[in-house]
Amino acid sequence: MKYYEDYEKGETKQLGSFSLTEEEIVEFAEKYDPLWLHVDEERIEKESPFGGLIASGWHSLMSCHRLLVEGDEDDIAALGSPGVENVTWSLPVYPGDEITVTRTVVDKRPSQKVPDRGLVTVEVVGENEDGNVVLSYVSKMYFGRREDGADAEEDDV
Amino acid sequence: MKYYEDYEKGETKQLGSFSLTEEEIVEFAEKYDPLWLHVDEERIEKESPFGGLIASGWHSLMSCHRLLVEGDEDDIAALGSPGVENVTWSLPVYPGDEITVTRTVVDKRPSQKVPDRGLVTVEVVGENEDGNVVLSYVSKMYFGRREDGADAEEDDV
Repeated sequence: MKYYEDYEKGETKQLGSFSLTEEEIVEFAEKYDPLWLHVDEERIEKESPFGGLIASGWHSLMSCHRLLVEGDEDDIAALGSPGVENVTWSLPVYPGDEITVTRTVVDKRPSQKVPDRGLVTVEVVGENEDGNVVLSYVSKMYFGRREDGADAEEDDV
Repeated sequence: MKYYEDYEKGETKQLGSFSLTEEEIVEFAEKYDPLWLHVDEERIEKESPFGGLIASGWHSLMSCHRLLVEGDEDDIAALGSPGVENVTWSLPVYPGDEITVTRTVVDKRPSQKVPDRGLVTVEVVGENEDGNVVLSYVSKMYFGRREDGADAEEDDV
């Protein structure tokens, strides 16, 4: 079981990579982000500033998130997330692009209100084959603690 | 066709509502957010601080986003999104909860670099049947412009 105490500020981890097919891109977009840029072949060919089909930014983000959840041991003492900051889609993701995903622990704080948990903040970054960042975001997640209130020198949430 | 000029700062729009079944919650989570809180029935029953299955926050967010994209005319001159801010999951969403979604235009700015587009920023809020906010986020989207550089008095992006 992986607890709050097992995350170290500054620690970076490669989470693996993903790539999306045309079919997957259209299927995801039809369900969750049916903007013409991701689903309308004819209009894309005529008008898209990207020169072809691109994935919904949400699809890329969810593909990163899956790797983030799977990147740790199966049993993590995670207790949900209060939110996410700074979602940035800096470059388009095309079918077949190989996106490599890294996460870095940027902050951790014990909870004052609920002494048996703490908040871990990670930055997640996806890069394409050329080493250019295509997306990034900062995700907060609550974790159970191994020892209640053991590191009281840290700032409280 | 809905252009940059057709969004007005302060304008609020009800986008409709959604609710998620147990099956949909588990299916989404298995694909994109396989945290035990959303997929592991046995562990949820024993350990979940939420007293039962809850939807992935991302699932609720994507359900809002679908309504946001569908909430305007089919033909919107949208050109993609540079990012999202302040994703906040303030309350859990349980199977069958009816979540009503509203969006408010909080900012709009013409682009200086690309004069035929502008950036529209909307805040999206989801509320449950009790009128409590369960999630909110701030989404930025580029739109094509009807007239190039027509409102030069606004701040440039």
